[in-house]
Amino acid sequence: MSCNFGNNIKITVFGQSHSEAIGVVIDGLPAGFKIDTEKTAAFMARRAPGQNDLSTPRKEADEVKILSGVVDTVTCGAPLCAIIENTNTRSGDYDKLRLVPRPSHSDFAAMMKHGGFNDIRGGGNFSGRLTAPLCFAGAVCMQMLEEKGIHIGAHIASIGMANDEKFDPVNVNKADFKKILSKPFPVINDKQGELMRKEIYDAKACGDSVGGTIECAVVGMPAGIGDPIFDGLENRISAAVFGIPAVKGIEFGSGFEGSKLRGSRNNDGFTAENGETKTLTNNHGGILGGISSGMPVVFRCAIKPTPSIGMQQQSVNVETLENQELVIGGRHDPCIVPRAVPCVEAAAAVVIADYICK
Amino acid sequence: MSCNFGNNIKITVFGQSHSEAIGVVIDGLPAGFKIDTEKTAAFMARRAPGQNDLSTPRKEADEVKILSGVVDTVTCGAPLCAIIENTNTRSGDYDKLRLVPRPSHSDFAAMMKHGGFNDIRGGGNFSGRLTAPLCFAGAVCMQMLEEKGIHIGAHIASIGMANDEKFDPVNVNKADFKKILSKPFPVINDKQGELMRKEIYDAKACGDSVGGTIECAVVGMPAGIGDPIFDGLENRISAAVFGIPAVKGIEFGSGFEGSKLRGSRNNDGFTAENGETKTLTNNHGGILGGISSGMPVVFRCAIKPTPSIGMQQQSVNVETLENQELVIGGRHDPCIVPRAVPCVEAAAAVVIADYICK
Amino acid sequence: MSCNFGNNIKITVFGQSHSEAIGVVIDGLPAGFKIDTEKTAAFMARRAPGQNDLSTPRKEADEVKILSGVVDTVTCGAPLCAIIENTNTRSGDYDKLRLVPRPSHSDFAAMMKHGGFNDIRGGGNFSGRLTAPLCFAGAVCMQMLEEKGIHIGAHIASIGMANDEKFDPVNVNKADFKKILSKPFPVINDKQGELMRKEIYDAKACGDSVGGTIECAVVGMPAGIGDPIFDGLENRISAAVFGIPAVKGIEFGSGFEGSKLRGSRNNDGFTAENGETKTLTNNHGGILGGISSGMPVVFRCAIKPTPSIGMQQQSVNVETLENQELVIGGRHDPCIVPRAVPCVEAAAAVVIADYICK
Amino acid sequence: MSCNFGNNIKITVFGQSHSEAIGVVIDGLPAGFKIDTEKTAAFMARRAPGQNDLSTPRKEADEVKILSGVVDTVTCGAPLCAIIENTNTRSGDYDKLRLVPRPSHSDFAAMMKHGGFNDIRGGGNFSGRLTAPLCFAGAVCMQMLEEKGIHIGAHIASIGMANDEKFDPVNVNKADFKKILSKPFPVINDKQGELMRKEIYDAKACGDSVGGTIECAVVGMPAGIGDPIFDGLENRISAAVFGIPAVKGIEFGSGFEGSKLRGSRNNDGFTAENGETKTLTNNHGGILGGISSGMPVVFRCAIKPTPSIGMQQQSVNVETLENQELVIGGRHDPCIVPRAVPCVEAAAAVVIADYICK
Repeated sequence: MSCNFGNNIKITVFGQSHSEAIGVVIDGLPAGFKIDTEKTAAFMARRAPGQNDLSTPRKEADEVKILSGVVDTVTCGAPLCAIIENTNTRSGDYDKLRLVPRPSHSDFAAMMKHGGFNDIRGGGNFSGRLTAPLCFAGAVCMQMLEEKGIHIGAHIASIGMANDEKFDPVNVNKADFKKILSKPFPVINDKQGELMRKEIYDAKACGDSVGGTIECAVVGMPAGIGDPIFDGLENRISAAVFGIPAVKGIEFGSGFEGSKLRGSRNNDGFTAENGETKTLTNNHGGILGGISSGMPVVFRCAIKPTPSIGMQQQSVNVETLENQELVIGGRHDPCIVPRAVPCVEAAAAVVIADYICK
Repeated sequence: MSCNFGNNIKITVFGQSHSEAIGVVIDGLPAGFKIDTEKTAAFMARRAPGQNDLSTPRKEADEVKILSGVVDTVTCGAPLCAIIENTNTRSGDYDKLRLVPRPSHSDFAAMMKHGGFNDIRGGGNFSGRLTAPLCFAGAVCMQMLEEKGIHIGAHIASIGMANDEKFDPVNVNKADFKKILSKPFPVINDKQGELMRKEIYDAKACGDSVGGTIECAVVGMPAGIGDPIFDGLENRISAAVFGIPAVKGIEFGSGFEGSKLRGSRNNDGFTAENGETKTLTNNHGGILGGISSGMPVVFRCAIKPTPSIGMQQQSVNVETLENQELVIGGRHDPCIVPRAVPCVEAAAAVVIADYICK
Repeated sequence: MSCNFGNNIKITVFGQSHSEAIGVVIDGLPAGFKIDTEKTAAFMARRAPGQNDLSTPRKEADEVKILSGVVDTVTCGAPLCAIIENTNTRSGDYDKLRLVPRPSHSDFAAMMKHGGFNDIRGGGNFSGRLTAPLCFAGAVCMQMLEEKGIHIGAHIASIGMANDEKFDPVNVNKADFKKILSKPFPVINDKQGELMRKEIYDAKACGDSVGGTIECAVVGMPAGIGDPIFDGLENRISAAVFGIPAVKGIEFGSGFEGSKLRGSRNNDGFTAENGETKTLTNNHGGILGGISSGMPVVFRCAIKPTPSIGMQQQSVNVETLENQELVIGGRHDPCIVPRAVPCVEAAAAVVIADYICK
Repeated sequence: MSCNFGNNIKITVFGQSHSEAIGVVIDGLPAGFKIDTEKTAAFMARRAPGQNDLSTPRKEADEVKILSGVVDTVTCGAPLCAIIENTNTRSGDYDKLRLVPRPSHSDFAAMMKHGGFNDIRGGGNFSGRLTAPLCFAGAVCMQMLEEKGIHIGAHIASIGMANDEKFDPVNVNKADFKKILSKPFPVINDKQGELMRKEIYDAKACGDSVGGTIECAVVGMPAGIGDPIFDGLENRISAAVFGIPAVKGIEFGSGFEGSKLRGSRNNDGFTAENGETKTLTNNHGGILGGISSGMPVVFRCAIKPTPSIGMQQQSVNVETLENQELVIGGRHDPCIVPRAVPCVEAAAAVVIADYICK
């Protein structure tokens, strides 16, 4: 089973790329919260395809229809179900893939799991399209968190070999997030952004794709949230973020770089500031022992290059077990990273709200 | 809540560093499995402190007492509870820490969560000592997996700036694991191992500590195990591995490096080999769409430098809110990485058994 | 949180009586199962209102729309979401109830839980209407169980003071179920059925309502299914059956009657029959130590009289805290028991499938 | 899996009748709560055998040893593990039962589930002895609830055909509980108690056993606690209470009797009293729509006669599949009901604390 997440605010994602609809049930929302549907729509628009020349020309309206859980737009304590009807699907593109799995897609693994009964059309329930309901849930959670002074933001940290600046892990704040949000290409340093965009254009020009990383921060986080061992912030955030297809790595604070350091350099000394205990640096990424320290929670995740590329690839006909060349048709993003930015924020929001908004 | 993990084989870890005992309940073990207690003891000995000049001189007997769940040493279908009594604790060392939290330890976060009632002695339930019951559970799971032809092994991939070779992600096998196990310092390339050991000695000589990375592989994994979205192999393995204190990052397959590549370079083409479909390369780390592809599952995790160092650090007296210098006494590992190797294997074993041994 | 059930086949029920739609997500269905939608429709028709002169004149089409989880009608391993759009709602009837809670309805308790933000229209998510998605899930589970030779059937065991015969707990079989299903009023003994119908007519004639009991049996159940302590068949079945609004009691086997007996009379001796071990009697209701014995699982549940009655009742204006007389309008069942029969079967099916169809 | 219960305060019960120890892990206890160990011991003594001439002459010390989760006796936020070592076991008594299952015991079902590997000694993990750790957990939960003004009490409601008075469901209070607690035989009406005791003596005199019922009430319960559908008070309480071996039925409020009534007689009108909304009667047992109404929660459960009797019974040799007469030796309670009273209270306490003490 795979579609459930959360202990207090439990989300259940459903749908396939080409099924009637995709959607999410959110159980455990406190009653009496007014959802700002314009804000959720704006949030989801950041994930939607077809926004610019860097993403797939597919248009997905992604119009959310709330079936339950609200009276007008105010939560009533019942599980909220929201769906997005699937339109503009061209299932024909995928027919030949049933026998010849696409490299680095889920096709082969899904076939092995489901004995060939998996829905191959558009990647079925393995499609990145399933991040749309995640984004809806995340948008609702984020609104609730904002009422509590907690803000979440992310930016593209790298595309291919081009890197953005990093968040200042001690001082990052919601003004930083707002600034990034105002840009069509969500980075901190626009010059670096140009290099990153070039990576995508260059890959696209070859019918190729490219990966990247996303950095996300949660600010206004109170200290003392989380748990040690199996249910801490790192465990929970990573479990949610790996729910976004194509994520292959995650690190908190100084992460892999920190593992190269000595303790004297990586440790974050404490200091008293305005009656509060803070850390001077934030190599711990706001999490100690699985519990928030009150410093910004900062993590980065690695997104693999889109596996759908226009170039010829080697595959196998799973019936005849003969090697076979494959060229994938259809319409695909040369780089999924820009559209994944709100998905990462949504995953973080769902986790934090689960701890905080119960 | 934090001490539970698993859906089918559910483990519940308990204990504090200086409580009467630490332990684990393992529920869902199939009845009729004979546990090889010598093998579990040998596995746990790899984690135990005091083995050589690189680790803390503390001796922990780590003798496991099985309270329930077996008749003789054969599982009977009832939950297995195993405990390790705590001995040789020197609680006095920790008294002053209640007011002055140690940098990059859980002290401050735990205090904020539990209103100061957390057990500060030896790090309480945030202690690395809690990985001993995890290792016991992992050792039992590993024995069950081995009966099914699934083997798990890990090595130190880096210490500070010194790196080991990586596993060959396509051909890694249990003979590789056996070879690593035979060495006192678990690396692939012994020459590199010497550089890595030097990193630890050098840090220790300064009263400092150093971090590193561990690479782990699961071989013999059947294809089709796992789930998309929230309950896939990546979600579950990461959730378990972050249960090991000091882990701050995880990546699967080509991970963060892969995010710099183009699709044409990172994609893993398929090939038919002896009637089976395999991939030519394994940048996907054996996992596609959250589900095993049949290739080795390969992941790496980042371990931060031990936060306990002998050097003077800056902290705060949380009562007076005055800054205060802190020097930590007690006996500590200059590098936790070598002892964390079996812990990472154990975390992987617990996850894989949860899917496979139900 | 309340809308999730199950460990392996997990169902998530959503919707309110007057929301856009009600529905269910079923996660964990094995891929490749062809759902017989005519059979699910026939099953749900047994629950639908407006069937005869004994139930509410409200018409609910209860047409199920499957949004995901199938390709054509074959499960594909993705979560199945099915919805029923709400039509023919007359929300106006309920407006005055916001301040003056209906006796023995959920209105007051829901208001206290949700600070008055609960959806009062038609009982919101406390409505018996939410058993429609449960019935859909149950119908799907039942089809899967039938393929494994497991059959579930129920009958009205009593209405008011009039009682039906009981199932023969040793020999009950699917032919018995078929016979009951062929009747418009699902009882074993039709003469007693007439007395039971009279109880309903008489209550209805006074603007009153009446309760009753339902007996359910699961036959073809293999021995060895279940668990002791908290996750046995009795725990799970009762947890599911209390999910049907108006259920106030449940008993397995000889139940409350058995508590009056001596062990020598209540114990079920074993006998060998055709190479199988069976019990001579079945006072244990097919469950010993939480685990199936291989005998039919038999349980009965108590359904309270419909709380909505046409007579004047005493209530309180929760704002002014003044006592106030209340007469409930709207269209209501004088007895919910006949329509609850398939709901009880569905609850049992969901539980048994959760153990068996994983 | 079967040994876990709870969402916020999660208990994990382990052990077999004749294993090294039995015990419980309680996760999620708020830190800073001082456990009154004399009170927990007194509570557990009510369950212990060997107290009087009505129960088994076995002596079980039932001394609880807390292994973790406290500093002194104050909770520290870490999972609390408590064990009771098993002593005074006479395993020899059970040897012949491996092949010839005892009627109405779990022996046969457990054998079918675990392929004969179940621990047959003393009933293994199906033993009533496993209620000792449940009682410990319940005693801790009850202390926390009492601090919040919530009190739980139970009495023997019937033994065989002899009945006690019932609680006044509207006015029952903690003084009633105290009075019952002061009696060696926990009933409301002592004269009836004599008849009930006679039922036990008479059964014992014949080497037979007898069943009964227990009524339990929770007072001081705030309104608004619980959930509709699958996670309401009735679902959760029943799931916990069926965790006590030998329970075969449960009913809330007017329960099965209420199912015979008309709505006009069973409905509970509201009245305003001292600025609070109450019900005039309490046929709903304090629960409406799965949520507490603020009235006392009242339920009754049916306990089957102890299956171990001294008389000859019919069984089967499961290897030869020949019928065989069986006479059970060993030491057994002629009636388990008196010792089950605190177990029922404990089950209720664990459920209510799970909702309230998070």
